[in-house]
Amino acid sequence: MTTSFDRMWAELAPVGRDGGTGGYRRYAWTRTDHDLRDWFAGECAARGLEVVEDRAGNQWAWWGDPDATPGVVIGSHLDSVPDGGAFDGPLGVVSALAAVDALREAGVVPDVPLGVVNFVDEEGARFGIACAGSRIITGALDADRARSLSDADGITMAEAWRRAGRDPATLGRDDETVRRIGTFVELHVEQGKALALAPDGTDDLHDPARAVAIGTDIWPHGRWRIDLPGEANHAGTTRIEDRHDAMIGLAGVVQAARSYAVSLGCVATVGKVVVEPGGVNAIPSHVTAWLDARGRSEEAVRATVDAVTAEADAHGATTTLESWTPTTTFDTGLVDRLHGILPEAPLLGTGAGHDAGVLATHGVPSAMLFVRNPTGISHSPAESAEAADCHHGVTALTAVVTELCSRKDLDPMGSAR
Amino acid sequence: MTTSFDRMWAELAPVGRDGGTGGYRRYAWTRTDHDLRDWFAGECAARGLEVVEDRAGNQWAWWGDPDATPGVVIGSHLDSVPDGGAFDGPLGVVSALAAVDALREAGVVPDVPLGVVNFVDEEGARFGIACAGSRIITGALDADRARSLSDADGITMAEAWRRAGRDPATLGRDDETVRRIGTFVELHVEQGKALALAPDGTDDLHDPARAVAIGTDIWPHGRWRIDLPGEANHAGTTRIEDRHDAMIGLAGVVQAARSYAVSLGCVATVGKVVVEPGGVNAIPSHVTAWLDARGRSEEAVRATVDAVTAEADAHGATTTLESWTPTTTFDTGLVDRLHGILPEAPLLGTGAGHDAGVLATHGVPSAMLFVRNPTGISHSPAESAEAADCHHGVTALTAVVTELCSRKDLDPMGSAR
Repeated sequence: MTTSFDRMWAELAPVGRDGGTGGYRRYAWTRTDHDLRDWFAGECAARGLEVVEDRAGNQWAWWGDPDATPGVVIGSHLDSVPDGGAFDGPLGVVSALAAVDALREAGVVPDVPLGVVNFVDEEGARFGIACAGSRIITGALDADRARSLSDADGITMAEAWRRAGRDPATLGRDDETVRRIGTFVELHVEQGKALALAPDGTDDLHDPARAVAIGTDIWPHGRWRIDLPGEANHAGTTRIEDRHDAMIGLAGVVQAARSYAVSLGCVATVGKVVVEPGGVNAIPSHVTAWLDARGRSEEAVRATVDAVTAEADAHGATTTLESWTPTTTFDTGLVDRLHGILPEAPLLGTGAGHDAGVLATHGVPSAMLFVRNPTGISHSPAESAEAADCHHGVTALTAVVTELCSRKDLDPMGSAR
Repeated sequence: MTTSFDRMWAELAPVGRDGGTGGYRRYAWTRTDHDLRDWFAGECAARGLEVVEDRAGNQWAWWGDPDATPGVVIGSHLDSVPDGGAFDGPLGVVSALAAVDALREAGVVPDVPLGVVNFVDEEGARFGIACAGSRIITGALDADRARSLSDADGITMAEAWRRAGRDPATLGRDDETVRRIGTFVELHVEQGKALALAPDGTDDLHDPARAVAIGTDIWPHGRWRIDLPGEANHAGTTRIEDRHDAMIGLAGVVQAARSYAVSLGCVATVGKVVVEPGGVNAIPSHVTAWLDARGRSEEAVRATVDAVTAEADAHGATTTLESWTPTTTFDTGLVDRLHGILPEAPLLGTGAGHDAGVLATHGVPSAMLFVRNPTGISHSPAESAEAADCHHGVTALTAVVTELCSRKDLDPMGSAR
């Protein structure tokens, strides 16, 4: 299993990696994405598993017939944020394939269908909506809206589909696919330092009991677009008193986001900005800024966003909600079962959204496993996990799948339904 | 003359205009630039003037032999800032061609060679250095540095030259071309409201005596690149206290630039920003911001930049001077002559850099004419000038050229040299 994990990891390492930054640029429906999807299909084929695409373009490989009885699904995604790390997403996909190998090595044949999934466009890096693949099939993202989303070059998702040889008319909610998912367990690199910090607050990267955690919930989180108006003019000849410079409003918004997040105990980030016209000697006529806000407490997040919106209002801006996800609590019965299988694993909430959260909100019993991240850094080329911890992750996932797919419990939820 | 002006103006109107913004995107050595250069060459050919290119790619059309005696040159540039207006540059080129027509209509044959120039890459929108064409031929911009400048896609000026069918090895200082310029008069749309404001401070767009001004000097101005460091990380999972968010530094820099410019009486602008990695859910690992600062007083500009640099330093940033131009005073003898020809025209300094300023710094007697701008807006699709004022501009330029090229004064400077 470690051999197959290491081989797959090495194969993926160069795909979509930027030579300059060392970060990954694996965006949905690009040539790089196509290469990754081909790689996934090839790995599945090598295991005798046929890949089917659903109406969002997510790839599913089933061992057993999921139309006979809903199955257990493992996997994650292969796309990345701009200049992202190697682990966010691919660790879950590669671990899922390695878990299949481990089951076979152990001679285990699942009594319940076992699926491996590669969700498309989880990061939303290209079209702006995270978890687009799971949102489309569950109907959380409307098909018409999805088709009309456009990337930085003005290419819509519909056009991107056409260029990828797919028919955008078929894009949409896919109840048949969702019905097949009895349980979903997504393994993911941890995106904070909780596992790397011992209870006394010092770094501990060696305790095997802290190599893997069980996810309990996803914090409430949302994304807002703030459009700050201005008036384009010459930077050299326009008096300060005649200016309406959209950049001034951006400065206020950035500082408000930081100061209210600190005082209210949540996190708020302005990570993306578009300045128009964008000339060194032109006063900005428009700045679009995106605010990402999250926290354990929904009230704190909403109060922070209200304060930032008030600051934006003072600059004449409009603030538009792009997405909002309340607290997602993973299926407590499933979490309890995972804790029974992995009794040493800590329980952990997270501030990051995931396809597992989208499915959980839709009512699919879902949970997550997190693999220790020594620095807590994520969405960066510096994102990392120790090889030993990755192997611990595969072992944990294998144990979970073995249990959830065993004949002693044909209903994957382990409860009478 | 008004007929030929209006025809040329209408022909240029659609070239490089973005349908969405209504602004112009006429960047050096692009297809659009090629179309504009072809248009210029065609207009010159139609007047029996052959166009020659110098070692920077500037286009020169001579009526008479400039190697016999240095001539009088009029013209400006055809490129634009991103989403710029129609007037900045093209007004000077079209007015120069219309002035040639006016001379011919009046039966005037210049006794001194008369040149019409289209300077390349005046705005520096693509490669970041303004007035690249005039800086290269005067040696103010080193040839190797010019060749290595790169655009947003990483294409160097050398590569852009090759793609435009030119040999970048020939790019460089061009004394032979500069020697031909006895005098340069650049007509340009005003980029502030000085001409549109009557002495009592109210708008006056009808006084013909205020349709055209004579430029006296260019304020000291400079451009600095500020590199703000950060550490990429996940926007949802990274505690505020663990963050190093480059965007926070940008907010401080923007506010410092504004507040010190106000208190010190100059102008400072952050008009261009690049955020890395630029994902909505990624903490910025790097922000590059460009500062443009200018003012009547060199001391005030320097003090403002020092204060902004100190703020940037506090965020761990490095601030790099990209260009600095001290006060450029146009040739006082030439300005006096223009004032004699156009006695009603106000005298005006400007905060904008121009090729006329680069030539003046190099020792070429140069001056400018400014055409009234009703709103003072420039570097924007809203940039404008009344047709009547544009025609006044051509009339003024024709009067200037008639006088400077007349036999009664074979030395265009009108002084014994």
